Amino acid sequence: MQEYIDKAAVLVEALPYIRTFAGKTVVIKYGGAAMAAAGLRDAVMQDVALMRFVGMNPVVVHGGGPEVSALMERLGMTPRFVDGLRVTDAATMEIAQMVLVGKTNREIVGALVAQGAKAIGLSGHDGGLIRATRHLHRGRDGELVDLGFVGDVAAVDAQVIESLTASGFVPVIAPIGLGADGQPYNINADTVAAEVAAALRAEKLVLLTDVEGLRADPADPRSRVSRIAAEDLRDWLAAGRIEGGMIPKVEACLRALEAGVRRVHIVDGRVPHALLLEVFTDQGVGTMVVR
Amino acid sequence: MQEYIDKAAVLVEALPYIRTFAGKTVVIKYGGAAMAAAGLRDAVMQDVALMRFVGMNPVVVHGGGPEVSALMERLGMTPRFVDGLRVTDAATMEIAQMVLVGKTNREIVGALVAQGAKAIGLSGHDGGLIRATRHLHRGRDGELVDLGFVGDVAAVDAQVIESLTASGFVPVIAPIGLGADGQPYNINADTVAAEVAAALRAEKLVLLTDVEGLRADPADPRSRVSRIAAEDLRDWLAAGRIEGGMIPKVEACLRALEAGVRRVHIVDGRVPHALLLEVFTDQGVGTMVVR
Amino acid sequence: MQEYIDKAAVLVEALPYIRTFAGKTVVIKYGGAAMAAAGLRDAVMQDVALMRFVGMNPVVVHGGGPEVSALMERLGMTPRFVDGLRVTDAATMEIAQMVLVGKTNREIVGALVAQGAKAIGLSGHDGGLIRATRHLHRGRDGELVDLGFVGDVAAVDAQVIESLTASGFVPVIAPIGLGADGQPYNINADTVAAEVAAALRAEKLVLLTDVEGLRADPADPRSRVSRIAAEDLRDWLAAGRIEGGMIPKVEACLRALEAGVRRVHIVDGRVPHALLLEVFTDQGVGTMVVR
Amino acid sequence: MQEYIDKAAVLVEALPYIRTFAGKTVVIKYGGAAMAAAGLRDAVMQDVALMRFVGMNPVVVHGGGPEVSALMERLGMTPRFVDGLRVTDAATMEIAQMVLVGKTNREIVGALVAQGAKAIGLSGHDGGLIRATRHLHRGRDGELVDLGFVGDVAAVDAQVIESLTASGFVPVIAPIGLGADGQPYNINADTVAAEVAAALRAEKLVLLTDVEGLRADPADPRSRVSRIAAEDLRDWLAAGRIEGGMIPKVEACLRALEAGVRRVHIVDGRVPHALLLEVFTDQGVGTMVVR
Amino acid sequence: MQEYIDKAAVLVEALPYIRTFAGKTVVIKYGGAAMAAAGLRDAVMQDVALMRFVGMNPVVVHGGGPEVSALMERLGMTPRFVDGLRVTDAATMEIAQMVLVGKTNREIVGALVAQGAKAIGLSGHDGGLIRATRHLHRGRDGELVDLGFVGDVAAVDAQVIESLTASGFVPVIAPIGLGADGQPYNINADTVAAEVAAALRAEKLVLLTDVEGLRADPADPRSRVSRIAAEDLRDWLAAGRIEGGMIPKVEACLRALEAGVRRVHIVDGRVPHALLLEVFTDQGVGTMVVR
Amino acid sequence: MQEYIDKAAVLVEALPYIRTFAGKTVVIKYGGAAMAAAGLRDAVMQDVALMRFVGMNPVVVHGGGPEVSALMERLGMTPRFVDGLRVTDAATMEIAQMVLVGKTNREIVGALVAQGAKAIGLSGHDGGLIRATRHLHRGRDGELVDLGFVGDVAAVDAQVIESLTASGFVPVIAPIGLGADGQPYNINADTVAAEVAAALRAEKLVLLTDVEGLRADPADPRSRVSRIAAEDLRDWLAAGRIEGGMIPKVEACLRALEAGVRRVHIVDGRVPHALLLEVFTDQGVGTMVVR
Repeated sequence: MQEYIDKAAVLVEALPYIRTFAGKTVVIKYGGAAMAAAGLRDAVMQDVALMRFVGMNPVVVHGGGPEVSALMERLGMTPRFVDGLRVTDAATMEIAQMVLVGKTNREIVGALVAQGAKAIGLSGHDGGLIRATRHLHRGRDGELVDLGFVGDVAAVDAQVIESLTASGFVPVIAPIGLGADGQPYNINADTVAAEVAAALRAEKLVLLTDVEGLRADPADPRSRVSRIAAEDLRDWLAAGRIEGGMIPKVEACLRALEAGVRRVHIVDGRVPHALLLEVFTDQGVGTMVVR
Repeated sequence: MQEYIDKAAVLVEALPYIRTFAGKTVVIKYGGAAMAAAGLRDAVMQDVALMRFVGMNPVVVHGGGPEVSALMERLGMTPRFVDGLRVTDAATMEIAQMVLVGKTNREIVGALVAQGAKAIGLSGHDGGLIRATRHLHRGRDGELVDLGFVGDVAAVDAQVIESLTASGFVPVIAPIGLGADGQPYNINADTVAAEVAAALRAEKLVLLTDVEGLRADPADPRSRVSRIAAEDLRDWLAAGRIEGGMIPKVEACLRALEAGVRRVHIVDGRVPHALLLEVFTDQGVGTMVVR
Repeated sequence: MQEYIDKAAVLVEALPYIRTFAGKTVVIKYGGAAMAAAGLRDAVMQDVALMRFVGMNPVVVHGGGPEVSALMERLGMTPRFVDGLRVTDAATMEIAQMVLVGKTNREIVGALVAQGAKAIGLSGHDGGLIRATRHLHRGRDGELVDLGFVGDVAAVDAQVIESLTASGFVPVIAPIGLGADGQPYNINADTVAAEVAAALRAEKLVLLTDVEGLRADPADPRSRVSRIAAEDLRDWLAAGRIEGGMIPKVEACLRALEAGVRRVHIVDGRVPHALLLEVFTDQGVGTMVVR
Repeated sequence: MQEYIDKAAVLVEALPYIRTFAGKTVVIKYGGAAMAAAGLRDAVMQDVALMRFVGMNPVVVHGGGPEVSALMERLGMTPRFVDGLRVTDAATMEIAQMVLVGKTNREIVGALVAQGAKAIGLSGHDGGLIRATRHLHRGRDGELVDLGFVGDVAAVDAQVIESLTASGFVPVIAPIGLGADGQPYNINADTVAAEVAAALRAEKLVLLTDVEGLRADPADPRSRVSRIAAEDLRDWLAAGRIEGGMIPKVEACLRALEAGVRRVHIVDGRVPHALLLEVFTDQGVGTMVVR
Repeated sequence: MQEYIDKAAVLVEALPYIRTFAGKTVVIKYGGAAMAAAGLRDAVMQDVALMRFVGMNPVVVHGGGPEVSALMERLGMTPRFVDGLRVTDAATMEIAQMVLVGKTNREIVGALVAQGAKAIGLSGHDGGLIRATRHLHRGRDGELVDLGFVGDVAAVDAQVIESLTASGFVPVIAPIGLGADGQPYNINADTVAAEVAAALRAEKLVLLTDVEGLRADPADPRSRVSRIAAEDLRDWLAAGRIEGGMIPKVEACLRALEAGVRRVHIVDGRVPHALLLEVFTDQGVGTMVVR
Repeated sequence: MQEYIDKAAVLVEALPYIRTFAGKTVVIKYGGAAMAAAGLRDAVMQDVALMRFVGMNPVVVHGGGPEVSALMERLGMTPRFVDGLRVTDAATMEIAQMVLVGKTNREIVGALVAQGAKAIGLSGHDGGLIRATRHLHRGRDGELVDLGFVGDVAAVDAQVIESLTASGFVPVIAPIGLGADGQPYNINADTVAAEVAAALRAEKLVLLTDVEGLRADPADPRSRVSRIAAEDLRDWLAAGRIEGGMIPKVEACLRALEAGVRRVHIVDGRVPHALLLEVFTDQGVGTMVVR
C-alpha cells in the first residue's frame, strides 16, 4: 500500500511541470557519459520520449568526438587538436561526418523510435538547417591558427525544425553546418545546441555534462550551486572562475539566454534519468542558469 | 540518490501508458467515498488534471445523492426510495437539480480549475446533451411503480462533448436528462457514465466505487479478481453472484462494453490516486472488465 | 395579399441589420420582468435564437435575485440588503449559487435548446471564466461595510467564451465569480454583463430592464431619450439626474463603452420581443448610448 | 405598439425556416416578369441577399430571351423559333452571349452587390462550369431539325460553384455551355437551373414563373395546388394535363427531384418578394413539388 | 542527341525563375496585336496557363477597343474619340460592356480553360471588384470635356481576387468599373491593370504592347533599352521623350511601381511567347522598369 | 529570333506534362553512372529540383555500393558478394551505414539544397520509415546462404514521407531498414524504391540505370523498346529474356506496378537530364512499363 502511495506521489509531483511546459520547446545537448554507457543512454531516450508524450517539443543535439577519433585511427590517421578543437582537414571532415551522421545520429534515432517517439535525424544539410562559416581561431599568441573545416554557426533555419515538430517529429541534430559553397563544417555541439535553442526561442536548454553542475569552488565537488543568474555567471567567467572544458559550455549558456531562451540547465549526465528529474520534479540535479 | 532513482522509475513506468492512451477518451464515474473525503477528492482532481495534461480526454460524470437528501430535510421534506431509486416529484426534482448542478458540479469544476485543468460543467440541458425518457419501474410484484421524474437515457449527443474536448475543456457532467417537453429527469449516474462512454466510444470507463473491486466470493473481501471477461461477468450476473448496489453498476459496465468501450474498470475510490495508479502503472487497484 | 406585402416588408427591413451584425458579438443582460413572465421569457428566447441563426454571437448574462430570497425564506433565513446589495454569508452564497446555477441558468439553457439554439450554461467556475475579488463596500458614512461574499470582477477570460461561440454554442452566464482561493462570489449581473462585453470587445451590450429607457426628466415616463452620447450620460450621472437602481446600470454602460463596446442599449424588457425590435428594425424601443 | 407586435411576429415566424435552411443550397431560376419590372427586380435582389445573410447558399440562374431578340432586330436580324426554341446560328449565338453575359448577368450582379451580397457572374466558360452538347431536336413529324448552337447540359462542375460559395460569393449563372471544341451553346435556363441544382444536390430549386403555380384545372387560375408529389406530377405530365411553356419547366422540376434535390417550388414571380415568402413564412405562394 | 541536350538546357534555364516566382502574383495587360492574331493569342494563353501550373498567380486584364467600334458601326452609331479616349454615352457604354464582358472576356476565359487553366471572368461588378468615379478630362485648352461614362479607378478590392486565386482560379478582368450608383464606367485597360497590380502588391506587371519596348531614341526602333529605373523613366516623361499612346502606358507603369509592384515589363506582344520568354528565360524581349 | 522561338517551343511542350503531374508523387531510384559523374549528378539535382518547383512530389532513393567497398578496403576488409548480394556482417553493416547515410546521402541532400530544393535525408530509422526482416537467400543449389544483415522490406510507413512532402521537403532515402530489434539491415536500393513507390501509390517510379532501356534482343543495344505492358514484361522474365543485374530491377518494376504505381520508367542515367526529358517532353529516353 505504501508503494502505491509513493508512486502516486511521484506522478502527482510531475503534474505542475507537465502543465507548465506543455507545448514548450526544450533543446537537449546530449553527449559525454550519458552517451557512452548503455544504461544511461536508454534512460535518456526514455526521458526524451516521455517529454514528447506529455506534450513538450524536445530537440536533441548530439556530439560524438571519441568515435570520430577511433575511426580515424583505424584508418591510420592521427587526430590532432589545438586548444581542444579538432584540426579538421578534408579527410577528417569526411570521417567526422560519416561517424556523426551515419553512426551516432542513427543510433540515437533508432533508440528513440524504439521508445515510440517519431525521431528524425538531421544535420546542417537538411533543408539548409545550419549554415556555417569558417571558425577563425586565434592561439594563445594571438596568431590565427588554421583548423581547417571547423565552423561557426552563421544561421539556423528555425522553420525547418518547427515544421518537423509540428508534424510530431523529434529532431535529432548532428553538429555539422554547411558553408556557402556546400562544404560541410564541423561545429562544437554545445554551440550548435545553444544556437538552435536561440533560433527556436526555446523554453529550456539542457546540457548533459560529466560534472555535477557548476561549482562555487572549482576544486570542491560538493560546492555545486543549484541556481545562478546569468549576470553572476558572466562575472564568474570574467573572473576566471570557470575552467577548461566548461568555458565554451558556459559561453554557450550565456549566448542562449541572451537570445531569449528562458532557462539553461547544466545537468549531470552520469545520473540516470537526470533529464527527467530536472524537468519533472522539485529537485534539480544540476545548475539552473536564469536570466 | 536512491530517492532519485525511485522517482525516475515511476515516471518511466508511466511512459508506455501515456504513449498508449494519448488522444484517447476516458470516462470517469466519480462518486462515493472519493467524493466525500476532502483528501480523496483532491487526489481525484489531480489525477484527472494529469490525464488531461498528458494528452488524454478525461470526461467526468458525478453523482451526489446524500446532499440532495440533506437539502430536502432542511426544507422539511422526506426523501423516499423504492428499490434504491429516489421517488422524484416536481419539488424533489427541483432540489436535486439545484444541488447536483448548483453545488456538487460547481465544486468539482472549481477544484479541477484550481489544478489547472479547463473544466466545464454540464447537465443534460447544455446543447441538448442528454435526452431522457421516463423510467418505467416495476416493483417485485411486477406492477409499475410511479417514481415521478426518474429517467432513462434516450440519447447522448456525443458532438457536444467532442467539440468541448477538442477545445481543450474537461467536461464534468451532472446526471440529469431533458425530456422531450423540456422536463428535467433524475438519472442514475452510473447509467449516465456508461451511456456517455458508449456514445463517445471511449477507450475506458472507470467507476470509482466504495469496494475494492469484484469478488469471486461476495462474502470474502480478499477474493477480488483483477481481470474478468464480459461474458463471464454476464454469467455471474445471471447466476446471482452480483448483489445489491453492484447490480446496476455491473449492468452499466456490460452496456458500455457492448457499445464499443474497450475496457471498464471498477476501482476502489477509497484508495488515494486509485485512478492514477489504475491508468498509469503496472498494478491495477480494482477489477478490469474486458470484451 | 396585403398581408403578404407587410410580412415581406418586415423581413426586408431586417436585411441591413442582419448584414451589419453578421459575426458580431452581442451581450444581453437578461433579468427583471422579461424573466418573470412566461410570455416575455419565451419571446426573449426566440429573439436570442434568431440572433444566433442569422449569424450573430449572442451571449446571455442573467440575474435571478427574487428566487434566491424565496429559497432562503423556505430555509428559515432572512435575506438582508445594504444599499441594494445582498449581504452574503457562506450559507447565503451556497443558496445563491444553487438557485442561479442549478435553477435559473438551467431554465434559460433548456428554453434556448427548445428553440434550437445550442445553449451552454456557465458560471465563473467554468474554465476559470470569471475571477472575483471581494467587493469593498463603503456605506454612506464612508465606513467599510462587510457584505461577505459579494464580489467585483477581477478578470474575464474571453477565450473561454470565444472558443464556445466558435463551436456554435450560445453561452448563458450566471453572475458568480471565483476568488483566488476557489471561493465563489456573488456579483451584480449588470456588472458581469458589462465586463463580459468589455472582455469580448462586443459590438453591443443590451440591458433588458423594467423601464422604457433613460428619461430626460426622471419623473416623466414620456421623456425617454432614444439616443445619448456617453459623455452626456456621464454628465447626467455626475449631476444626479440618474437615480436609484439605474445608477449601477448606467455605470456598467459607461464602463463597457470605455472598454471598447460600440453601443449599449437600455431596453424595456416588458415589451415582447423588445430585443428583436431593437436589433432588427428601424425603431428602437429604448435608449441607445454611443461613444 | 400593435405595429411592434406584428413586426416581431413576422421575424419570429421566420426563425424555424432560418434554422432549417442554414448552410443549405437553394438554386433560383430567375426570369419572366420578376426580371422585367424594376420593382419586382429589386425585391428579388433583396430576397437573395437576405437568404445569403441568414446563412443559406443561394445560386441564381437567369434567362434573358426578350433582350436577345431586341438586339438582333436592331442589327437587322430576324429571330426565328422552332417549337419555342430559338434557332441559333453563329451570329445569333454571339449576340445571345453578349446580351446574356454582357448585359443581363451584369445587371443582376450589380444589383446584388448593391444589396451588400458578394455576387459573382458566371457562364459555362468559367472554370469549365457547364459542358454542353448539341441539342438534337425532333419536330412533330419526328424528323431532326437543325437548331444550330442550341445545347443540352452534358456536365456541371459542382466544385467550381462550391468553392465560390465557400468563399462567400453568390454565383449568378448565364445559361450558356461550352462544347468540347470550345463552341458556346445556348441552353434553356430552366434546364440549366435544374442541372445545377442536381449537381449541387441542392435543398431547393425555386422557379420564378409568370403563373401562380400549377393548376388542377389548367383553365382555372383559382385551381392552384400548393403541394404535389413528384409521381403525381409525372402522371399529370403523361396525361397531358401540363401545357405549352410549362412542359419544359415541369420536366426540369422532375429531373432535379430525381437527382436528389429535396423540393422544387414553382412560384409566382409577379408577387413582390414571392421568393422570401415561399422560403421564410408559413404560407407558400406557389406550388411545392416533393419527392 | 543534340536536340535532347538543347531541350534540357531550356528547361533547366527556367528553374531559377520558377523557384523565384513561386507563389508570386503577375498581372498581365493583354491587348493589341497579341489579341488580334490567332497564333499569338494561343501562345499567350499557353504562357498564362504555364505560369499558373508552375505555381505563380497570373491575373489577366484585357482591353478590346476595336470590337466595340465594330458593333457600334453595325448598329449605325459613330464612335467618337477625344484625345484618344472614347466618348461614352449610355448607349455606347451598354455596347462596350456587352462586347468586353460578353465577347472578349468569354473568348479569353474559354481559351484558358481549353489550356487546362481554371480561368474565371470578372468585371468591376463581381464582388464590387472595381469601384469607379467619373473621369474629369481636360482638353488642350484646359476646359473640362464631357466624355460621358469614362471612369477612373476609385478602388480595387484585392480580397475578391485573392480569394479566387487561393481557390485555384485565374482571374480575367474586363476594364469596367462600377460607380457609387451602380452605373458602369469604361476605364482604360492599362490603368486597370496598373491599379490591380498595385492593389495586389504584385511581383510583376507585364504590359503586352505593339512596340518592341521603350526606345532611347523614339524615332529609332533599334534603340530599345532593356532596363531602366523608374526615376529615369519619370525624367524621360517630363522631358517629352515619351510620345502618343505610350504616355498613358508609362504613367500606368510608374503608378504601379510607386504602389509597391516590384517590376514592370513593357513587352512586344507581336513576338510569339514574348510573355514566357520574359518571365522564364535569361533574355527579356522588351523593357523592364525597376524601382 | 529563331532561338527565341525554339526556347518557347520547349517550354510550351512541357505544359501538358506539368499540368498532368501537378501534385503527383514520382519516386526516383538514383544510382549508377548518374551518381558517379559530376556533370550528370548536377543535372539530376536540377531535374529533381525542377520537378518540385513545378508542383510534383519527387522522392529520391539512392544506392551507393562502390563507396562502401572503398572504405572497407581502406580499413583492410575484403568485400564479399554472393549472387550479386553483399555479404554483410556487423562490421560491414556499420561501414555501409556510415557511407550511405553519412556520405552519399549528405552529398545528395546538400546538392539539392544548393539548387533551392528543401531536401531532407532519411534512412529506415527516421520515424521508423522502413522496417526490415532478414533476407533468406537461397543459392543455386537451393541451400540457404547466410548473408548476414541483408534485409527485405517488411513495411514502409507512407505517413512519414507524406507529412514531409506536405511540409515542402524532398525526401532523400538511403536503403537501410530497421529490424524489429533495432538492428539495421542493408537492402537493395531498387527494391526500396519500388516499395516506397508502392506505399505512396506513386504516379511514377523512375529507375536511373546504366543501360539505354529494355532491349527486345538482349545482345542488340539498338533494339530498345520504348513502351511495354507489365504482362509482356513478366513473360519476358519467365522466358529468360532478362539477364543478370536487370533481373532484380525488372522484378522491382513489376512489384511496383502490381501495388498500384501507374508507370515505371527504366531510363538511361548516362544521358544528361534523362529524368527531365522523360518526364517533361514528348520523347522518352528509356523504356516505360505500363499496367
